[in-house]
Amino acid sequence: MSSSKCVKVKVPGTTANCGPGFDVMGIACSIYNELELTLLEEKKLTIEIYGDGAENIPKDNRNMVWRCIEELVKKSGAKYKGAHIKMTNNVPLSRGLGSSATAIVAGLVAANACLDNKYSVQEIFEMATAIEGHPDNVAPALFGGITVSAFLHGNLKHISFLPDFPLKMVVAIPDFYLPTKKARAVLKQQIPLKDAIFNIGHIAMIIGALSQGKVDVLKGAFEDKLHQPYRADLIPGMNDVFKVADENGALGTTISGAGPTLIAYTVENYEAIGKAMVEAFAKHKINAKYLVLDIDSEGAKIV
Amino acid sequence: MSSSKCVKVKVPGTTANCGPGFDVMGIACSIYNELELTLLEEKKLTIEIYGDGAENIPKDNRNMVWRCIEELVKKSGAKYKGAHIKMTNNVPLSRGLGSSATAIVAGLVAANACLDNKYSVQEIFEMATAIEGHPDNVAPALFGGITVSAFLHGNLKHISFLPDFPLKMVVAIPDFYLPTKKARAVLKQQIPLKDAIFNIGHIAMIIGALSQGKVDVLKGAFEDKLHQPYRADLIPGMNDVFKVADENGALGTTISGAGPTLIAYTVENYEAIGKAMVEAFAKHKINAKYLVLDIDSEGAKIV
Repeated sequence: MSSSKCVKVKVPGTTANCGPGFDVMGIACSIYNELELTLLEEKKLTIEIYGDGAENIPKDNRNMVWRCIEELVKKSGAKYKGAHIKMTNNVPLSRGLGSSATAIVAGLVAANACLDNKYSVQEIFEMATAIEGHPDNVAPALFGGITVSAFLHGNLKHISFLPDFPLKMVVAIPDFYLPTKKARAVLKQQIPLKDAIFNIGHIAMIIGALSQGKVDVLKGAFEDKLHQPYRADLIPGMNDVFKVADENGALGTTISGAGPTLIAYTVENYEAIGKAMVEAFAKHKINAKYLVLDIDSEGAKIV
Repeated sequence: MSSSKCVKVKVPGTTANCGPGFDVMGIACSIYNELELTLLEEKKLTIEIYGDGAENIPKDNRNMVWRCIEELVKKSGAKYKGAHIKMTNNVPLSRGLGSSATAIVAGLVAANACLDNKYSVQEIFEMATAIEGHPDNVAPALFGGITVSAFLHGNLKHISFLPDFPLKMVVAIPDFYLPTKKARAVLKQQIPLKDAIFNIGHIAMIIGALSQGKVDVLKGAFEDKLHQPYRADLIPGMNDVFKVADENGALGTTISGAGPTLIAYTVENYEAIGKAMVEAFAKHKINAKYLVLDIDSEGAKIV
């Protein structure tokens, strides 16, 4: 029985929304999941999972990574019917750091590599976005950097770039799950025009400031009026965690994705900010840990 | 009777909103108003006006330029009570090319120069924004370039930058006035969340694409869902004018400010786009003229 060559891919975790950039902005973070894939012609599926949340991830044909691999292989017309999958996960599961997009991108990029990159990166981007439902985590997982993505005249487009200063993300990861569906359910479907203008101004300032190296302008630019105020009740202590990060010198603070992870963006004082955020969570009886992450510049890559 | 030295300032016209960047984005254009100012200690006001709309601008103490000069002089505590003002206007009056912001910035910058620049540029920016009510035209008139401006934590901030490719604005100026008040009255004060997300995605793509030199990404990024659809009825032929500009190679088309001027953004085919826009207006029985404008890089300056 023949099998394809084994490939190994490494995909970054991501933070999306970044405050005002709801469903639009994302950042690839220096925390990675790895996937080793061997496609098999026989209809056999073995899945090994190590690392964060391993016990909570299905190891049969419901597995998201496998479903993405299967979809791409079927679409390509290749004859593979099974796989051996080995995942090593560092991205926390279902905490707002893009674990789902990471899994999707890993599966598609690995399967595509096994098929001699039959599909372009843009095609992989479009497939991943269709599976995930929105591009804001998929874009940074695939391309790396700070990303903006949207459908322009129906065509999925993205921009990826790096700032010329060492922006870090201090992420405080609380010890509970917050399903995206629940975090979406609290949003208002009709909003005041002035709140929309607020977010338009703030996201424009963030993208401009990150692009033009204006660190001073970032201060205050991460505020949001469209989703975070409605989600505060789902993340006990959110405003206190934001407050102590600000007091310790953060440029801004946001929910990461749909939460519950909270992020402080900063160019200094990382450890103090992280400790203060964890302590603020503790005052609300929430266990949390913090990580200091850099921007990943490469996105998904074969290793 | 002593008088201050005479100063002459040149201030660019501006286009604001730029589609999705409602109340946020602006661009300084290579079309200018000039103001010569002599402050007088005696309570005497003489105003000469030449150029566009001269016959419609008050030449007494209701004059906007004078009112800005008077406000700054009073605030400074200086003893001047009158002025001789000479304005030469090329920016069309009340057509959506920022004539009001240009007048305000000209008056403040000229008066400040007469007072040995007692106030910083940031202070002039804040005064001008307070008078105009919003910063989107004031910022490019004062700083030049492509600007983003917003209040961050209550502090008025801006970014000004230039793209690394030769973006031009083809402006089609129809022969009728559209008061900003009327153009504001048609807006909805409650809007769908998805329309806000649409604009957030598009403004982020524009600022990212202009900053990162991604001309290809601009195509389609100038679409808006928050103000232009509601204003179409106030500008006969708007969608047809946009269509012919697109067909002739424009990257995007928008209302300039609150209209009625319409803009095509392009890197090619300027004259053909302008002629087609004017012809499309003519089919709706609207006389119009077009101008091909560059981005002004300097903003208000003493000449």
